[in-house]
Amino acid sequence: MTKYWLNNFAIDDFITNALKEDFYWGDITTDAICASIDNPLFEVYLTTRQDGVLCGCDVFKRVFEILSKNEVEIEFYFKDGDLINKKDRIAKIKGNARFILTGERLALNFVQKMSGIATYSRQFQQKVDKYGVKVVDTRKNTPNFRLFEKYAAKVGTNHLHRFNLSDCVMLKDNHIALYGGSITKAVVEVRKTLSHAHKIEVECDTINQVKEALDNKVDIIMLDNMTIEQMKESCAIINNKAIVEASGCVNLDNIEEIAKTGVNVISTSAIVTKAPTLDLAFDYCS
Amino acid sequence: MTKYWLNNFAIDDFITNALKEDFYWGDITTDAICASIDNPLFEVYLTTRQDGVLCGCDVFKRVFEILSKNEVEIEFYFKDGDLINKKDRIAKIKGNARFILTGERLALNFVQKMSGIATYSRQFQQKVDKYGVKVVDTRKNTPNFRLFEKYAAKVGTNHLHRFNLSDCVMLKDNHIALYGGSITKAVVEVRKTLSHAHKIEVECDTINQVKEALDNKVDIIMLDNMTIEQMKESCAIINNKAIVEASGCVNLDNIEEIAKTGVNVISTSAIVTKAPTLDLAFDYCS
Amino acid sequence: MTKYWLNNFAIDDFITNALKEDFYWGDITTDAICASIDNPLFEVYLTTRQDGVLCGCDVFKRVFEILSKNEVEIEFYFKDGDLINKKDRIAKIKGNARFILTGERLALNFVQKMSGIATYSRQFQQKVDKYGVKVVDTRKNTPNFRLFEKYAAKVGTNHLHRFNLSDCVMLKDNHIALYGGSITKAVVEVRKTLSHAHKIEVECDTINQVKEALDNKVDIIMLDNMTIEQMKESCAIINNKAIVEASGCVNLDNIEEIAKTGVNVISTSAIVTKAPTLDLAFDYCS
Amino acid sequence: MTKYWLNNFAIDDFITNALKEDFYWGDITTDAICASIDNPLFEVYLTTRQDGVLCGCDVFKRVFEILSKNEVEIEFYFKDGDLINKKDRIAKIKGNARFILTGERLALNFVQKMSGIATYSRQFQQKVDKYGVKVVDTRKNTPNFRLFEKYAAKVGTNHLHRFNLSDCVMLKDNHIALYGGSITKAVVEVRKTLSHAHKIEVECDTINQVKEALDNKVDIIMLDNMTIEQMKESCAIINNKAIVEASGCVNLDNIEEIAKTGVNVISTSAIVTKAPTLDLAFDYCS
Amino acid sequence: MTKYWLNNFAIDDFITNALKEDFYWGDITTDAICASIDNPLFEVYLTTRQDGVLCGCDVFKRVFEILSKNEVEIEFYFKDGDLINKKDRIAKIKGNARFILTGERLALNFVQKMSGIATYSRQFQQKVDKYGVKVVDTRKNTPNFRLFEKYAAKVGTNHLHRFNLSDCVMLKDNHIALYGGSITKAVVEVRKTLSHAHKIEVECDTINQVKEALDNKVDIIMLDNMTIEQMKESCAIINNKAIVEASGCVNLDNIEEIAKTGVNVISTSAIVTKAPTLDLAFDYCS
Amino acid sequence: MTKYWLNNFAIDDFITNALKEDFYWGDITTDAICASIDNPLFEVYLTTRQDGVLCGCDVFKRVFEILSKNEVEIEFYFKDGDLINKKDRIAKIKGNARFILTGERLALNFVQKMSGIATYSRQFQQKVDKYGVKVVDTRKNTPNFRLFEKYAAKVGTNHLHRFNLSDCVMLKDNHIALYGGSITKAVVEVRKTLSHAHKIEVECDTINQVKEALDNKVDIIMLDNMTIEQMKESCAIINNKAIVEASGCVNLDNIEEIAKTGVNVISTSAIVTKAPTLDLAFDYCS
Repeated sequence: MTKYWLNNFAIDDFITNALKEDFYWGDITTDAICASIDNPLFEVYLTTRQDGVLCGCDVFKRVFEILSKNEVEIEFYFKDGDLINKKDRIAKIKGNARFILTGERLALNFVQKMSGIATYSRQFQQKVDKYGVKVVDTRKNTPNFRLFEKYAAKVGTNHLHRFNLSDCVMLKDNHIALYGGSITKAVVEVRKTLSHAHKIEVECDTINQVKEALDNKVDIIMLDNMTIEQMKESCAIINNKAIVEASGCVNLDNIEEIAKTGVNVISTSAIVTKAPTLDLAFDYCS
Repeated sequence: MTKYWLNNFAIDDFITNALKEDFYWGDITTDAICASIDNPLFEVYLTTRQDGVLCGCDVFKRVFEILSKNEVEIEFYFKDGDLINKKDRIAKIKGNARFILTGERLALNFVQKMSGIATYSRQFQQKVDKYGVKVVDTRKNTPNFRLFEKYAAKVGTNHLHRFNLSDCVMLKDNHIALYGGSITKAVVEVRKTLSHAHKIEVECDTINQVKEALDNKVDIIMLDNMTIEQMKESCAIINNKAIVEASGCVNLDNIEEIAKTGVNVISTSAIVTKAPTLDLAFDYCS
Repeated sequence: MTKYWLNNFAIDDFITNALKEDFYWGDITTDAICASIDNPLFEVYLTTRQDGVLCGCDVFKRVFEILSKNEVEIEFYFKDGDLINKKDRIAKIKGNARFILTGERLALNFVQKMSGIATYSRQFQQKVDKYGVKVVDTRKNTPNFRLFEKYAAKVGTNHLHRFNLSDCVMLKDNHIALYGGSITKAVVEVRKTLSHAHKIEVECDTINQVKEALDNKVDIIMLDNMTIEQMKESCAIINNKAIVEASGCVNLDNIEEIAKTGVNVISTSAIVTKAPTLDLAFDYCS
Repeated sequence: MTKYWLNNFAIDDFITNALKEDFYWGDITTDAICASIDNPLFEVYLTTRQDGVLCGCDVFKRVFEILSKNEVEIEFYFKDGDLINKKDRIAKIKGNARFILTGERLALNFVQKMSGIATYSRQFQQKVDKYGVKVVDTRKNTPNFRLFEKYAAKVGTNHLHRFNLSDCVMLKDNHIALYGGSITKAVVEVRKTLSHAHKIEVECDTINQVKEALDNKVDIIMLDNMTIEQMKESCAIINNKAIVEASGCVNLDNIEEIAKTGVNVISTSAIVTKAPTLDLAFDYCS
Repeated sequence: MTKYWLNNFAIDDFITNALKEDFYWGDITTDAICASIDNPLFEVYLTTRQDGVLCGCDVFKRVFEILSKNEVEIEFYFKDGDLINKKDRIAKIKGNARFILTGERLALNFVQKMSGIATYSRQFQQKVDKYGVKVVDTRKNTPNFRLFEKYAAKVGTNHLHRFNLSDCVMLKDNHIALYGGSITKAVVEVRKTLSHAHKIEVECDTINQVKEALDNKVDIIMLDNMTIEQMKESCAIINNKAIVEASGCVNLDNIEEIAKTGVNVISTSAIVTKAPTLDLAFDYCS
Repeated sequence: MTKYWLNNFAIDDFITNALKEDFYWGDITTDAICASIDNPLFEVYLTTRQDGVLCGCDVFKRVFEILSKNEVEIEFYFKDGDLINKKDRIAKIKGNARFILTGERLALNFVQKMSGIATYSRQFQQKVDKYGVKVVDTRKNTPNFRLFEKYAAKVGTNHLHRFNLSDCVMLKDNHIALYGGSITKAVVEVRKTLSHAHKIEVECDTINQVKEALDNKVDIIMLDNMTIEQMKESCAIINNKAIVEASGCVNLDNIEEIAKTGVNVISTSAIVTKAPTLDLAFDYCS
């Protein structure tokens, strides 16, 4: 099973800030309830109440490491990308109750969101796997949570679109509008200063735009909100001379039909923004 | 109309980090497309494609202020909390295209999420307004985005639950488990060191627990996943000697029935975690 | 003995910044004096030159951990809240002299201030313990040092007032002035949007205000700068229907008399702002 | 009048952090009380209830600028270092009540502490001005508040000791202990790598040490906890070949006597750590 | 003239940190020299003592804005990318001497380095412009200064290589070694999870590797330290089916010969790491 | 061998930021190439391809520690300041290939720059060692990289000039210009508020200025761009009553001649700004 990963040094600031967000100067409940118990120990299971794809194990662990140093031990029975079934015990958490009680909500908030996205994304990908089509995400993310959302989407589909505005050119209507609607002029202008290491993608609404983009030898042609028929026609015209990406109003019902048109990639914000959280919880056995 | 607000100094770090997340060292599309246009001007409308409650105006503005200092002017025709209707022009954005093109996605990401939450939250509140019941949120938030989610929920319902672990004691099963399941012992312990400025809430699963909590004169009694009948019985027992909060599996279909049981407050994560984004977009008029 | 605690992740930024404040790019004395000694070892005792209450052990330790990773070992013979007597050895510090010499002043600055506050706070609390009255602090803190001052005060008295502006409503003159001096109107307004998880405290200068606050069923009534007689009268009127807090010009001489009036809580900035530092020092045994 | 200054860019982080410390996500009192008042205006005077030396005007102003951008105007009638008398109106604060109410405590916390230090420091300096002796501070500061404490001390006395461990060598007992108690060996070692831009100060407990330090041509000789007689003898021996600094148990009663011994500088932590806050407050005229 | 730009929000943290690096708590020279001059005014010219390409105007300005808010006015007579000649007055700086004296060195450090790189980079580009070849930089940067070095290189050559490890795949020896030296296996593996928005570049040392890379249809083939003859042969084989990049030991003497081989891009760290600073200075006219 | 050091807590932020600069959200090459290899191990040598002085061992190590926690082991065979010869193996790096591949460039960027500076600086120092003259650096640094440049220069020469504007007064033309060109007036003014712990250096262009500075008993007299003859005359006049520092256009050819004039210190930016990087690289043995 393919394995992706998040670097501690990249996520530590996010986790530390999130912990401060949740109890800056103290968890008054846990502080008071544990004030006179010298070494309050807990042993807890992280269990799932739904089937799905697990995602966020390292983040979950890191929450308790940052919170407690060595006072909480966590053993995972599954890893990111694994299928988990309702009632499965996902991990055992053992140690000082102070930290377990205080960190529970944040750790769950991460793993529930991320597993939800991985689960939902995989459903999209599975519908089109047989056509060799890649489902990818977009830049419609929760601000300051993109790293986690993108990672979870990748755990679900194995591929992503660009991470942000720095790693691929995408010319949309409004960029092209600056050149009087001429894709040709816009692409020529961009090539004057673009790095040879970056691709150019052009968003096309019409068959004519597809042709113009193709004539300019762009790397990726995005078919924006086209009908199934238009997509088929576009793929025939492009004929593998550019990567074809379909976009717009994609859902679990229509994605297979889109995949059949011959496009290479289907991009959709739905796999992130519409993903329901996966219901995971702590079962206390104290 | 009631008005809430977010302080610039509190949100600036979030926005600056989110901008870095989206293009740390440069927006290679906009940079290349604008390289030889001296003063590319745009005039754009923020419009809504759905009915809903607007939320996030100040954040939206601040994105462009941080990005451009004075090179983008924004005039809002509505304010946070206002009802907006499909096709309404919400704001006019005018200025240097460089900044408008680069900031568009992030500004939309904020306002779509926040308006979505405000819209959805208000639907819950409106169902129970006539019973004098308050709908409030929970701590099930997107990590590092709570400030915006809580603000949006408040714009929708006018009330919130505690912000985080620092501002109200909430004793759950697992806390009480540390005292052998005795609410009495747990509350006595907490009172030894709790500030007189903080309230105590106790989560109760059974009528007996409700009675025990009441005997201990706690401030808030939370009825956790009780049936309608149990809630009614609890309210009768409590008889206004504590605030009664209902929680668990709340949705738009059952909330009114819950409200009728006599509870004072209904808390639910749904108003935040299940809120669909509101579809807002830029209409370029260049 | 009750035990409170500060989370590493919460204090690490403070300590790191304080270390940078004290020697950003180098301790030129220690750097030069140790340049040609390969492994300069020190064994030192932290000793107290005054009787008092110890406070800040974890912060003290953390200074050397952040500075040296594993090159300094610290063993404490006492813990936060313990009474210590002149000449007691509080801890043994052992390891690389570079780190001990460089970190000494900052570690002492923390523990001297914090122990000073714990010591002084306890003196106030002990005067009124027999009356069941709680002494609490205020928001008159050193900016950016509140976490440590509040913690130390709690080690001394076991209780605190609100941590900051986010966790309890306190209506003062100037808030009420916005409603023409009407406590009633102000409280009604506040209740429109206040969370059910937060208390309301009202500052009262006169008996009439006490009555008005009581009629509005506020949670806490603060008697501001009242005479002993007025306090007694207020307590009689309030008759346990609200928590009564006395405030203003509290000192070690008058606190017992105030406690006798029947108030529940006495708040005073003196326990923090007037606390003399406790004289602790390093005894080098090299 | 001499004028010192603090740079905005240096203090902005401190102020922003301090504001977050005091109300991270919201001032629930002011937010609720102002929710339905569109433009709540206040006009307030900062007045002093004690005689003293004013200090912290720029910090005070900056608190409200960071909090409100342009919605609070502040006019100062005095400047840092000015003598102010009981009941003087120090400044007029005018603008949106939301910001004035929320920022009041923090702004006062700064100016009360800083004016307290400036006032107390000046008292020490005035006792010895006629002897041409400089009173200076030490590194016994509140962690993360040194910038403000040092600035205030300088406003009081016009001079400071080193800011931190990076800007002057000071050899104490424990440094010298690494060289078997030999000042000579320690100084020789230090000179091997010390910048020519830095001075060397040596702490001496005995007349013999004074002689040894002098033989090594150090820049500053500190007489640590010496008697008046020892100080006189030391000054005679040193005979202006090094700067002489007296230190240890300095107070307002003995400082003049110390100054008469012929020392050039008297250093004491008392001017910072024992300075009482100056009582300044807001007089609301709404 | 093409114009690139750096966003304030991206560079502000760098500048603020660099200012703290240079005088954290105070510029003791300027502070002391200006202490008794109420409004010390300066009018200064930034002049160049060498011919070159100007770079860093916005950073230069921003240093004084961050330092002084509005107390220093700067008017530039040239802009980034302009040719400047020895003795040219580049800008006029006018305002409070305090800020000009304190900020001078840092502002010059930026503009001298950046102009040096722009000047040197342009020399490389001019040698090969007639061949339609792009000179680009590498990732051999000064840590934490890449944004400024890359920007300056782009001002000099108009193009850059990838910004960092996130925006283009580059397979080097050591990556390929993980697949037993098989470029084919490595590329196949990478394509399993790589975004369609990213290119693949492969570093080749031999003609055989060039052929293997070409067979795998990679986007960019880097000829690493090849001889002129090998480069010619490689270009013939590749025949425009991939972008050809030459790398290794490029200098002003051999770059033209390399360009003649038919490669499309020449990458070299020299344009950044070997660029001499351009000698700019302040001419005080006070 | 003298040994200097950099504190982890001081360099960690720099390294973390530099890692983010190089791959904020992921190293797409390494991530893709390692996705299906469970435990990709590498054993690599850091070798030098040039003779020189090693510098930056701790920084090199820390890069991999921050990146990988415990998954990369590094053993150094030399330490900072050691002479290394072409082809020497400097260190063995062993562990998870993911981290080694990702961290390689940044770790090398540090050690190549720092070793380059140490090597070049030592060459300057060695030319003048026999005259007892110290070579020191200046404030002409790469912004935000000073800590590393100063440290490397010190490893090369054993001495530094002031670190920044906070630790020594240096009066230049423009400061003195504020007092009508009178060194006397400027020094008198500075002494009014300068700490006794700080030195005063004055930049002199003429013999008359040298005399004026000497009359004012300043600590250091800098001879700025003087001829060899002027330097000799100045040294004769000063006659050991102040430290004499030569500055301006110093290079490896003229430094010995300058040293012979009798100056104590020679300061030059060349040892940092003109130092070529030292060529170190990874030799993969996988």
